[in-house]
Amino acid sequence: MSSRWIGQLEYRVPYADTDQMGVVYYANYLVYFERSRNELMRAMGLTYKELEQRQLGLPVVSAQIDYKTPARYDDLLTIRAELAWVRGVRLQVDCSVCRGDQLLAMGHTVHAVIDLRSLRPARLPDELLARWSQAVPGAEAAPAPIAAAGAAAPPQPTTVRNA
Amino acid sequence: MSSRWIGQLEYRVPYADTDQMGVVYYANYLVYFERSRNELMRAMGLTYKELEQRQLGLPVVSAQIDYKTPARYDDLLTIRAELAWVRGVRLQVDCSVCRGDQLLAMGHTVHAVIDLRSLRPARLPDELLARWSQAVPGAEAAPAPIAAAGAAAPPQPTTVRNA
Amino acid sequence: MSSRWIGQLEYRVPYADTDQMGVVYYANYLVYFERSRNELMRAMGLTYKELEQRQLGLPVVSAQIDYKTPARYDDLLTIRAELAWVRGVRLQVDCSVCRGDQLLAMGHTVHAVIDLRSLRPARLPDELLARWSQAVPGAEAAPAPIAAAGAAAPPQPTTVRNA
Amino acid sequence: MSSRWIGQLEYRVPYADTDQMGVVYYANYLVYFERSRNELMRAMGLTYKELEQRQLGLPVVSAQIDYKTPARYDDLLTIRAELAWVRGVRLQVDCSVCRGDQLLAMGHTVHAVIDLRSLRPARLPDELLARWSQAVPGAEAAPAPIAAAGAAAPPQPTTVRNA
Repeated sequence: MSSRWIGQLEYRVPYADTDQMGVVYYANYLVYFERSRNELMRAMGLTYKELEQRQLGLPVVSAQIDYKTPARYDDLLTIRAELAWVRGVRLQVDCSVCRGDQLLAMGHTVHAVIDLRSLRPARLPDELLARWSQAVPGAEAAPAPIAAAGAAAPPQPTTVRNA
Repeated sequence: MSSRWIGQLEYRVPYADTDQMGVVYYANYLVYFERSRNELMRAMGLTYKELEQRQLGLPVVSAQIDYKTPARYDDLLTIRAELAWVRGVRLQVDCSVCRGDQLLAMGHTVHAVIDLRSLRPARLPDELLARWSQAVPGAEAAPAPIAAAGAAAPPQPTTVRNA
Repeated sequence: MSSRWIGQLEYRVPYADTDQMGVVYYANYLVYFERSRNELMRAMGLTYKELEQRQLGLPVVSAQIDYKTPARYDDLLTIRAELAWVRGVRLQVDCSVCRGDQLLAMGHTVHAVIDLRSLRPARLPDELLARWSQAVPGAEAAPAPIAAAGAAAPPQPTTVRNA
Repeated sequence: MSSRWIGQLEYRVPYADTDQMGVVYYANYLVYFERSRNELMRAMGLTYKELEQRQLGLPVVSAQIDYKTPARYDDLLTIRAELAWVRGVRLQVDCSVCRGDQLLAMGHTVHAVIDLRSLRPARLPDELLARWSQAVPGAEAAPAPIAAAGAAAPPQPTTVRNA
């Protein structure tokens, strides 16, 4: 089931992304990470664009990346994201960039939840927190969320549309 | 006097701007053009940021550029912009990129005037149109704008603040 | 047959490409053009990477672009390139960016042929010139290239691999 | 004395660097870091361009950044870099981005030393290692490097050319 919760895309490296060392310039990997996060959110059932329409944003508060092997022009990269953890006001996404089976770079970003009108911290709606919590690897094996008698079960992954 | 109406800046080329051919990637010149336009507007007395605060924007409707000689990493470039013409709803800015005396690239952008709330075409306020018209090279030599008896003279360049 | 000679790709707009006007920043369209040129060359049977391995490059000598309607975050764009004309030392590629049926931007780039070792002008090998000439729209209807007795026919499009 | 060993520049934020949240897109801070590293190397007496002419490169092997407060269009940023530590085959640079007195972002990059011909790990020449070691904050107060009686003092910053 976990594969449903991975954001993944293939990306062909343009000349634009290279630098004069003949490899992809290091800042571009953070753009690659963003692309995979977009696909992760799409996979989790609510795109980032839709999140913004609800007046919520997820600005990056920190980023970390390890560069293993350089990507090059015209490489066909596979970029992946998955949710490491999520709390009401903050979440972490782990990302990787591969060329075939070879891991080129990996890292993560931590995001705050903000209200786009005030640009101030906000809490994720319970519905989203519950749904996204299920996207954290290993979440399926975790004790079920406390469900008081009569309480609605958390949204099931089966309802997730993958556009 | 005309030098007051030129937007100009020096810019040190970072590695980020290069590509694997060892030269500045061609799309970056449009960013250089933008930087010089920002300085042109500052020189003309109203920054683009201040224009936006008046709910006006100048999106690019067309761009043209000729690449003469490549810029390279760590070059100290001089980027210049001047107003080619301005009408109520549209204007053109001519830009150039030099390394010392050597012309590396030149081109222009045409901009529409829009209302940022509706993103629809708008007219420049008469005050701005009058002021900016004076920034067009040769404008000083042009016949004086029609000045009906008692009409206020167009704003004088001497009032221009150069931040 | 002409569709074989079009470079085309779909591209999902990341947040990275937007600016504070809420639309794709204008310089990024030149990157989009590059992406479609890469696919055009792949479609014509020799990738730009392979061309570089032959020590040939196609730096841009001029670019022109008209912006019709802004692209936005998360739009799925279709970017297309086709060869407008090719001569021994220069060629032009026409590009367009669409969202569904809607044309957002169109323009072209003119490229010089250079030797990557000297970075000086060079001529396309006859084989490439002949092959690419066939990719120019309408080329099929043109008079057949002069084929002296015993001369080899130009390479046929049927030999083109589309990776 | 330590201020001589800081790479520092002022940088006016262009529209190009913003995104539709109205702030500087997060990947651009890594470009800002690079700009300050370039100035740090210039301050330390050998530019990165000159290092490359010696066939040495300093690719990034990891990067980390904390985003405190967003930078915005037309902000005049002060970007600073200093050497955190240096060893024969690796070094770390700490960077910060400020608007006036306000810290907007801070982080660091770790760099490998490589031979640009082979793209394989290399050692810094002793001369560079010795010179750069003095640029590490606190290095002046540190126990003197092995100094046999009568040995020459470590190279003085006064020998540093600041281009």
